[in-house]
Amino acid sequence: MENLLQIPSEEAQIRIQKIQELLIAQGIDALLISDNANKFYISGRVYNGYTYISANGNVIHFIRRPVDLIGDNLVYIHKPENINEILVERGYSLPNTIALELDITPYSTIQRLSKVFPNAQIANASGILRQVRSIKTDYELGLLKLSGEKQAKAYSQIPQTYKLGMTDLEFQVEIERLSRLEGCLGEFRISGDSMEIYMGNVICGENADNPSPYDFAMGGAGINHSLPVGCNGTTTAEGMAIMVDVNGNYTGYMTDMTRVFSVGELDDLSKKAHECSRRICKELSAIGKPGIEAKALYNKAIEIVEEEDLGHLFMGHRQKAGFIGHGVGIEINELPVIAPRSRDILAIGNVIALEPKFVIPGIGAVGVENTYIVTENGMECITHAPEEIINLI
Amino acid sequence: MENLLQIPSEEAQIRIQKIQELLIAQGIDALLISDNANKFYISGRVYNGYTYISANGNVIHFIRRPVDLIGDNLVYIHKPENINEILVERGYSLPNTIALELDITPYSTIQRLSKVFPNAQIANASGILRQVRSIKTDYELGLLKLSGEKQAKAYSQIPQTYKLGMTDLEFQVEIERLSRLEGCLGEFRISGDSMEIYMGNVICGENADNPSPYDFAMGGAGINHSLPVGCNGTTTAEGMAIMVDVNGNYTGYMTDMTRVFSVGELDDLSKKAHECSRRICKELSAIGKPGIEAKALYNKAIEIVEEEDLGHLFMGHRQKAGFIGHGVGIEINELPVIAPRSRDILAIGNVIALEPKFVIPGIGAVGVENTYIVTENGMECITHAPEEIINLI
Repeated sequence: MENLLQIPSEEAQIRIQKIQELLIAQGIDALLISDNANKFYISGRVYNGYTYISANGNVIHFIRRPVDLIGDNLVYIHKPENINEILVERGYSLPNTIALELDITPYSTIQRLSKVFPNAQIANASGILRQVRSIKTDYELGLLKLSGEKQAKAYSQIPQTYKLGMTDLEFQVEIERLSRLEGCLGEFRISGDSMEIYMGNVICGENADNPSPYDFAMGGAGINHSLPVGCNGTTTAEGMAIMVDVNGNYTGYMTDMTRVFSVGELDDLSKKAHECSRRICKELSAIGKPGIEAKALYNKAIEIVEEEDLGHLFMGHRQKAGFIGHGVGIEINELPVIAPRSRDILAIGNVIALEPKFVIPGIGAVGVENTYIVTENGMECITHAPEEIINLI
Repeated sequence: MENLLQIPSEEAQIRIQKIQELLIAQGIDALLISDNANKFYISGRVYNGYTYISANGNVIHFIRRPVDLIGDNLVYIHKPENINEILVERGYSLPNTIALELDITPYSTIQRLSKVFPNAQIANASGILRQVRSIKTDYELGLLKLSGEKQAKAYSQIPQTYKLGMTDLEFQVEIERLSRLEGCLGEFRISGDSMEIYMGNVICGENADNPSPYDFAMGGAGINHSLPVGCNGTTTAEGMAIMVDVNGNYTGYMTDMTRVFSVGELDDLSKKAHECSRRICKELSAIGKPGIEAKALYNKAIEIVEEEDLGHLFMGHRQKAGFIGHGVGIEINELPVIAPRSRDILAIGNVIALEPKFVIPGIGAVGVENTYIVTENGMECITHAPEEIINLI
């Protein structure tokens, strides 16, 4: 037997209340969670089933598996169709409006769940949950800081795994191994049905300029067309920059950190662009306070890049990314988004990865990425590792 | 510049034709692909965009990224709304019925895509694509055989990575490393929004009996409640069985293979159950011919298990899986499903993983898993590695 709740019950209560406040504000009677990331958010674990949250206070967990869970307001069911009869049995009024995760749940599943509430109007729960999850609680910030510490510890061991003449893939495999031994869970949670990557992105040389189909900051051809992103088997060689952007999921909450390594000394352009990235991170994290528009951070980065005449290399060369930062947490692409047309406004408790990066054709990619917590005084970095380019030989 | 098509054009033609035949049979005018697995199926690569396949012959690839693709019938678009105007420009008649991947595509995305074809009825493309993909072409069988060879080569190196006193996680990390160095892509493609696993499943001791929320054959508690499956940090010790079921995605097509290792000699019950699994694989693969019902294979397995009085341990102990085998290919859970209520009928070109497994409480899990091609003469194994329990010390 194991408790369903894997977070303190007061913590679960805080999260549920934040959801209920938005339900009330939007005139929605109840919300049904079926997505793993959202289940983990409200209970601290992934389970097979659904959680029903009514605006007026009732919360019921409808569980299929695992078979051994116990806890308050927990009911085992065989299929979602059982939800309706259980609500009726318990004397709960059925919702007139039910919010479902329309942006992530497959169409057929939503059709099936809609029939569970035949008289209810369907609303979209996705925006509500994205908004609630974008403001981390103190408990969540603790887990994010822990991920940052562990990720930094893993990164500190990277140089000792390198051997001259390794391919980018061989180097990545050693980084995967040391990350996993440090406790990295591996799983890279991303919202969006077409987004996928394995353990992270290690790119160097010409490959850094290979465009990928995915909406990541950097590309790379990958080693197979079924997953065309990241390292492609390039032999690392003197003069190359190797950008390492590898999974920071150590606690179910992910930090995002990028560092650059070089094989020997890099050229002046690469060094200049790398320092420009550090400058952007420094200046943006100083002005990134509650109430600031996300797009203002983006515009400031562009201003700096243009001042330094590096615009043609910023966020890609042959193909450019449309953002320079993003919220992180249970998933790697949470709110706010730091992009030119973002409507997000920074708030205390946002956790944001800034990744102003440059592709230097023929050399690789340079720039740093750090994860920050938005505080009253600006953005506090939680991924502490030396930012200088580290020469591997 | 790179070709969109990463398979021979005759091969692409065969696959498109199979889809068109089902469209015609079901009276559907056209189908729009937006899922990565299906894109990889029809083109041999993942891209950001859509492919439109009309029943009467037209195929158009609408691409957003990467920016450098070339090929026949390829059009760059900014957003799906451009699809309609391009079809009109080219003088194609708009479909009266359009099939979309309703079982995997999020509700909001389907709503948006529906508006691209405002006068069309929406049909479900998911079943069509699942059915087509369940019969592999010779070209696909070649890739599956190659994955099987590479996976077997990786598995053959497993014993040398073991050290007495390792945790299951440490052992898994070494297996991940050697698999990756052998060319494993890592990415574990699974259909179904609530299914997730990292690189595979290594379970031993008591942990083999820990139920998981996922619909895999075996469970395990995992090392974090955000991904509660697989190894949980158990220290491997004498008398334990260690079941290794690790990713066989070496080509974009996955084979699925499980082998069991032991720390010292195992008890008689574990050995008996392991031999029973081998017997089931042998007998099922002999009778698994075209025209045989998938459920007949399942029933035969149950018959053998009951004859050997091992039913209480079969496919789990505290929690049981509802199937003993499944189709594999681009994803790990394709058709046919070998389960008691499966309506699938075996056909030439099906590729099926059989995994009759047993949980031995306190010891671990035993049994083998192999991947087979359905041929006129029965099921041909493509995961050739010794099936005996290998003693690691």
